Amino acid sequence: MGLNKEMPAMDAYATKTDRTAALGVIRQLLGERLQTGEAARAQHCHSTTIIEPQLPDAVAFPRSEGEVSEIVKICCRYRVPVVGFGTGTSLEGHVNAPMGGVSVDFGEMKRVVAVNAQDLDCVVEPGITRKALNEELRDTGLFFAIDPGADASIGGMAATRASGTNAVRYGTMRDNVLALKAVMPDGSIISTGQRARKSAAGYDLTRLLIGSEGTLGLITELTLRLHGLPEAISSANCGFPDIHSACLAVIDTIQFGIPVARIELLDELSVRAVNAYSGLSLQEMPLLLLEFHGSSSAVAEQAAACGEIFAERGGTAFAWSANPQERNRLWQARHDAYWATLRLRQGATCITTDACVPISALADCVTSAQEKVKSLGMIAPIVGHAGDGNFHMTLLIDRDNPAETAKAGEFVGWLAECAVSMGGTCTGEHGIGQGKMRYLAKELGTATCWMTRIKEAIDPLNIMNPGKITAGSG
Amino acid sequence: MGLNKEMPAMDAYATKTDRTAALGVIRQLLGERLQTGEAARAQHCHSTTIIEPQLPDAVAFPRSEGEVSEIVKICCRYRVPVVGFGTGTSLEGHVNAPMGGVSVDFGEMKRVVAVNAQDLDCVVEPGITRKALNEELRDTGLFFAIDPGADASIGGMAATRASGTNAVRYGTMRDNVLALKAVMPDGSIISTGQRARKSAAGYDLTRLLIGSEGTLGLITELTLRLHGLPEAISSANCGFPDIHSACLAVIDTIQFGIPVARIELLDELSVRAVNAYSGLSLQEMPLLLLEFHGSSSAVAEQAAACGEIFAERGGTAFAWSANPQERNRLWQARHDAYWATLRLRQGATCITTDACVPISALADCVTSAQEKVKSLGMIAPIVGHAGDGNFHMTLLIDRDNPAETAKAGEFVGWLAECAVSMGGTCTGEHGIGQGKMRYLAKELGTATCWMTRIKEAIDPLNIMNPGKITAGSG
Repeated sequence: MGLNKEMPAMDAYATKTDRTAALGVIRQLLGERLQTGEAARAQHCHSTTIIEPQLPDAVAFPRSEGEVSEIVKICCRYRVPVVGFGTGTSLEGHVNAPMGGVSVDFGEMKRVVAVNAQDLDCVVEPGITRKALNEELRDTGLFFAIDPGADASIGGMAATRASGTNAVRYGTMRDNVLALKAVMPDGSIISTGQRARKSAAGYDLTRLLIGSEGTLGLITELTLRLHGLPEAISSANCGFPDIHSACLAVIDTIQFGIPVARIELLDELSVRAVNAYSGLSLQEMPLLLLEFHGSSSAVAEQAAACGEIFAERGGTAFAWSANPQERNRLWQARHDAYWATLRLRQGATCITTDACVPISALADCVTSAQEKVKSLGMIAPIVGHAGDGNFHMTLLIDRDNPAETAKAGEFVGWLAECAVSMGGTCTGEHGIGQGKMRYLAKELGTATCWMTRIKEAIDPLNIMNPGKITAGSG
Repeated sequence: MGLNKEMPAMDAYATKTDRTAALGVIRQLLGERLQTGEAARAQHCHSTTIIEPQLPDAVAFPRSEGEVSEIVKICCRYRVPVVGFGTGTSLEGHVNAPMGGVSVDFGEMKRVVAVNAQDLDCVVEPGITRKALNEELRDTGLFFAIDPGADASIGGMAATRASGTNAVRYGTMRDNVLALKAVMPDGSIISTGQRARKSAAGYDLTRLLIGSEGTLGLITELTLRLHGLPEAISSANCGFPDIHSACLAVIDTIQFGIPVARIELLDELSVRAVNAYSGLSLQEMPLLLLEFHGSSSAVAEQAAACGEIFAERGGTAFAWSANPQERNRLWQARHDAYWATLRLRQGATCITTDACVPISALADCVTSAQEKVKSLGMIAPIVGHAGDGNFHMTLLIDRDNPAETAKAGEFVGWLAECAVSMGGTCTGEHGIGQGKMRYLAKELGTATCWMTRIKEAIDPLNIMNPGKITAGSG
């Protein structure tokens, strides 16, 4: 997977002496909340992929926007890289520090600043995780809808434009952030918008920062869109003879405008893994797993409509339930798919990659990918947010076998290019980070030059998470 | 209303001789499709506000992306301003040409390039209007949901981040454009994305261009999100004793998660105007006008739920209907509100302004605005996309009376600041253009400096629609 050729040169940054001086100044500010020990540094370049860990020089734990601003000002003065850190669950090496520098961990900035129930919004600090937020919202009748699986931090989810199982109904982070506060590369603090639900006032800096992976600024506060907890929730599942008919059933569901809250695809291998891991007895064939949100009658109507569509597409054993225990069990199993997958091969390492295509191309893309994996002699179960045309493949490799590692790299590249050739994207939700840099230009061509121009204009010293997305010019 | 102090100096641009030379080169390309007559030029700085018209030097009618690219390359070489033009229905002077230059009219680029029914998307040229597009989509069972009232061009709607009555359900242009092609300030053509429904690949150039009002590039192709035509549509209306209770009813509706497709507020004066103009007999009191989309049972259920909520908030004479004639008559009347308003004062000119606040502040903002208008001795009926907290006031003034014009200007500024003070924005959907430039920094503070940096990085010669949004540095 390696790094991009455009990587900035190390000598563009502070010398060792200057780094030490910069860390000294930051220590005056944070005291014990600046850590330089090996363990802390190693935890802050955590990567679940085959990208090699690259440690920061230090880890800072600010408690306020003011402290974040000071840290960035110091790093700007000494030209020390700054890498934002939420929970470390990103998958493409986003939190790696190839040029060293300071990892800014938002773990001590996780307050809910305000809940505006009448306006269905709230204001939070970036370090709060989505589960903690929903716990705090419990008594308001509202919830934050984005669910990427991992209990990620809200700031990290915004920085990587995360989405997940609910996106088919509620959109992605792009759609669920109303406004941001951010510390820019010179340490100044900006506010990108107000709490109004829409605005036509100037360039959309909110959306520019969402998905910028910390390369343009550090998000220090988010105004989030909330939704009312649905009156009723029901779930359903249905097996299909093949991936193709399952995908056609998804297309019909979306086209008929059935407002499914979730519609997930698991291939046969994933179903087998999940059955074994979570003690379920789902039929071992391609499976659609659904959730419906609405009034009691609406969710019943939606389930019935899906049942009819699925039957026409050859679905078997359509089952739906409004029983919360049953539902939670099914979705917990879906969320545990990663762990279930790991069990398919003893001692294996998981390499997870994602792609997203127009849904009309989903069946072709998934079946081609299955064939490719087979031809490489690998194992890679598939789970997908089928309603968005987005799916994940988890390659199970022996990390100590260089041939397998190389084949995994080859497959990741093959899938990115396959998705792009079908009108899709090399990443639906995991982001570019380090792992997908080489595919960005293949997907977007010269548009990436304009991304670089923006990066250079906003961060001329290239201190904000250097070596990611377009890498900057250094 | 005047222009911003930061306006670029005229001498930053091509001399008269160079302009003539540039137009000569463009004429070689376009022949008769470059017009320099007074009438054409005057039509292309059309403004319905009190902003004075400022004519371009010429109007170009390209037929292809390649021609747009050539025009921009020539303008770049000679440093001649370029102003995009759709249908001229924008309200804040967006198509004015304060520095002269070439108005690029997309009226001859209005093809539907592709309809991908399975993926619920289509690809169009920017000049097609929303009504023409929906006409072309008629047989597909799909529709494009954004309805700003005017039959605007899709390119113009994207450039200004338009929304309108359906936004509460379907979002704004921001949410309904999947990808763009654009000609950048150096004449190069970029593609900002693929047809996948979501992507985490790099900076969100799509969203950066949406709402950039032609100051960063000219949109030459759009991939749009479509929706399935609802199985059933019904409409409802309900009077309220005052604005406050109507707004509380809106909050309840949104909070209960009733997926209204439209929820519009008309104040007493607007109802009177609409009754007189469209021959209706609505009760002359604050009115909510709604539309529901869904299955037959879903729309009936939604209407019933709204009926209950509205009764609790003091609503009277709640009426709903699935009859299409009745529904169309009501919505036509809503869309004719502008013309109806004009009739309230013989010979008057309309100055329309918009603001958007969190819905909890809507009642306060609207009633404060009504009082302010009264204190200024003016007439200004209100219609609003209440579900978004967005509303419009149409000031009826005697254009020949400088005192009234001044008072209108004063009111526009007062409303912008009032909305911002309540956590809202100076424009929910009309954009900044020339008319709201002075309020942008009041709303977003130093964030506007970063907008200027982006503008300067992407358009260093400041040829793309100069004198708008942040004005650029010239």
